[in-house]
Amino acid sequence: MRLVILGGVAAGTKAASRARRLDPEMEITVYQEEPEPSISECGLPYLLSGVVEERDRLVARTPAKFAEKGVEVLVRHRVESIDATGKKLSVVDLRTGEAFEDAYDRLVIATGARAVLPPVPGAELDGVFKLRFLTDSDEIGRYIDERSPRKATIVGGGYIGLEVAENLCRLGMEVSLIEGEDRVALAYGPEVSEKVEAELEANGVGIYTGEKVDEFTGEGRVGGVKFGGEELETDLVIVGVGIKPNVELAAEAGVKIGATGTILVDRHMKTSLPDVWAAGDCAETTNLVSGRPAWVPLGDTANQMGRVAGTNAAKGEEILEFPGVLGTGIFKVFDLDVGKTGLSEAEAEDAGFEVVSAGLETYDRAAYYPGAQKAFLKLIADRETGRLLGAEAAGSGADKLTDVCATALWGGLSYPDLINLDLAYAPPYGPALSPVIQAATILSGKFQHAREGVRASE
Amino acid sequence: MRLVILGGVAAGTKAASRARRLDPEMEITVYQEEPEPSISECGLPYLLSGVVEERDRLVARTPAKFAEKGVEVLVRHRVESIDATGKKLSVVDLRTGEAFEDAYDRLVIATGARAVLPPVPGAELDGVFKLRFLTDSDEIGRYIDERSPRKATIVGGGYIGLEVAENLCRLGMEVSLIEGEDRVALAYGPEVSEKVEAELEANGVGIYTGEKVDEFTGEGRVGGVKFGGEELETDLVIVGVGIKPNVELAAEAGVKIGATGTILVDRHMKTSLPDVWAAGDCAETTNLVSGRPAWVPLGDTANQMGRVAGTNAAKGEEILEFPGVLGTGIFKVFDLDVGKTGLSEAEAEDAGFEVVSAGLETYDRAAYYPGAQKAFLKLIADRETGRLLGAEAAGSGADKLTDVCATALWGGLSYPDLINLDLAYAPPYGPALSPVIQAATILSGKFQHAREGVRASE
Repeated sequence: MRLVILGGVAAGTKAASRARRLDPEMEITVYQEEPEPSISECGLPYLLSGVVEERDRLVARTPAKFAEKGVEVLVRHRVESIDATGKKLSVVDLRTGEAFEDAYDRLVIATGARAVLPPVPGAELDGVFKLRFLTDSDEIGRYIDERSPRKATIVGGGYIGLEVAENLCRLGMEVSLIEGEDRVALAYGPEVSEKVEAELEANGVGIYTGEKVDEFTGEGRVGGVKFGGEELETDLVIVGVGIKPNVELAAEAGVKIGATGTILVDRHMKTSLPDVWAAGDCAETTNLVSGRPAWVPLGDTANQMGRVAGTNAAKGEEILEFPGVLGTGIFKVFDLDVGKTGLSEAEAEDAGFEVVSAGLETYDRAAYYPGAQKAFLKLIADRETGRLLGAEAAGSGADKLTDVCATALWGGLSYPDLINLDLAYAPPYGPALSPVIQAATILSGKFQHAREGVRASE
Repeated sequence: MRLVILGGVAAGTKAASRARRLDPEMEITVYQEEPEPSISECGLPYLLSGVVEERDRLVARTPAKFAEKGVEVLVRHRVESIDATGKKLSVVDLRTGEAFEDAYDRLVIATGARAVLPPVPGAELDGVFKLRFLTDSDEIGRYIDERSPRKATIVGGGYIGLEVAENLCRLGMEVSLIEGEDRVALAYGPEVSEKVEAELEANGVGIYTGEKVDEFTGEGRVGGVKFGGEELETDLVIVGVGIKPNVELAAEAGVKIGATGTILVDRHMKTSLPDVWAAGDCAETTNLVSGRPAWVPLGDTANQMGRVAGTNAAKGEEILEFPGVLGTGIFKVFDLDVGKTGLSEAEAEDAGFEVVSAGLETYDRAAYYPGAQKAFLKLIADRETGRLLGAEAAGSGADKLTDVCATALWGGLSYPDLINLDLAYAPPYGPALSPVIQAATILSGKFQHAREGVRASE
């Protein structure tokens, strides 16, 4: 039995490890274009600044380590086509240019996603980078070493852009951030965006929202960026907008593509083709709150999907399920922690919910306990049922608040549950009543008003 | 309509505030023996050491502040008896000795609990203290100022004893801790107790487990403590064992007492008597995991119970419910965070469950992210259903892990839910897969083995 896995980052390597554990006899080969497998891509912004000092720490396992476990990892190999009927693959060894055929009994597609540069003049200039792979950060690192850029421009105010902004500031650069929409952190509500922008400003980052890049200027090397009639001098550009799922190979082989443009899979991570599974940033899933198809290219989700795909592919059975995601995410920007789970108010309305929300500013520990820092939490609930739909947190302990709310979403809890929830209290860890309980209590007041409103209009 | 509340700490003041908000007309009087209401008792260990610098920070609201809201708070008053038929109270003003009668339409009993000294010779000596009220910490503070004790002995290795041990060490004292059972933190499994003991030892605390105090020695003032044939020199003793619910007043009035020796209430915090509710450390509740009656004298729970009792008492209706607790708790001892929710392995077995558990040692952030610290997590599940029964965490981020597991318990989640749970990941906040997910994955392996075991034996 031969299992072939396309892609060797989070989903692919997890699938390989699971399959190996479940079936010690199976032949397992992983193909990957990038020179190193098993990269912690989420750590790349921190490698740029030296917060993570050693590059090797971001390589979880080398091909040699995989070989010890009986998993063949072939890096610098590109799979050019899949013959799903004949269960064959055309492969090119990128180091030699040599093409060859391979065959599989079972196939896991974990081809991930790629970052794209905006289609504007000058995007090809030296000094304009994206940050997706370790090879990207190697290139940026070399450029910084050689050119000592003083002014940097980030394009895109999402997770990656914000993390990179912080890390370039750590290197002493003067950083500007350009965002096409009217605020950064667009996946969040406006309260959180405001806090993120205030944190950026407090750390000297220039923010240009509602601006689209028209052109990168320079001769060979980038020297400026034009937008909205302005031109900003810049020595380095990092683009953090636009990632695309790598689905072309699968689509050409006849794998069905879902509504989000990623590979359609069932709850067992099975694609539309026999003996072909998919996992990770190239695969579609379901947002369990909205019930809608979702594309969530995140490392932890890829890992979880890889586990399910690898298990089912190893056994050729429907053993494990991956039911979907909540849309949970988190990022750090300077000293601000920002997390989210479920739907934002706008996303909930878009998904057809009538929304009741409550936000509050409180502390991460008892107000009298030294070092107490502010924490913001917003809960979003369904007016009809009272069920939690989403939560956003910003400030100290946002990771805890986000995870508690994510777990509450998974359990289908409503605001009365959250009010009585038995969370852990001692003065170093929170206010006597958790911000989650406090916010749910405010929410309950709004539900009473909402119900009275209904009664009054009846 | 006159509402009387007996007790002015967490449950009593919360009930008063809620009632006032819901009914601006109602007369509300709170009686309390201690001189100050609305004390954050959980902060007392930190006041001892000066970690909390200002005593006033622990008084959430003065009687004058309550008066502004139209709530009469009468401190230094003891209610001596309740006439439930006539709805009358006998009260003594402890400042003047004057006795008088009061009447109520509705009554909330929130008389709390008291700390007790062990019934051994010398317990009455000067320098032997308990720590429950602000008046206790005032006394201890005065004693420390006057006597400058160098050697302190803590009796009891539970939350209070451990917190006090840390705070006396901060004052430069040589601290010994005596625990009657064979390990400290007995509500937890042995893995956590070991970590707590190691943390105590690393900070120079002498630990004497499996030892019961025979006698406190000294002439007028404590000078030693005898146990197991030894005598330890000591200048100060703080006893953190033995608290008793203040239920005598209620019991004499005919209020039914539950299996735990605390006031029996229904889900609406209603007692067995008409128009009498109870809340806080004197009231019984249900452990939602075991389904058994539980007594959980904790500040946050008291607060939540007070909200329900106050609301229902204000309206005289069954408006809110307090379904019960999970047994969640947390404490800090030096640099170790220790939290728990649900049942420990021993408690689960005692409650009739066949248990499967999995523990793991991991990190509080990506291993490559600077400052990564160890975190231990143990999950306890029901072999029959796979449902989570409890969790224990020790180390950095134990508060987050505990709260996530508490929320999972509330939602009735099983280990397969926990494996796929969509928690927040970025390198500063955890490993790519949360310790909860990792532990649940280990658990799943044990369930497979358990099932295979069953098959093999069939």
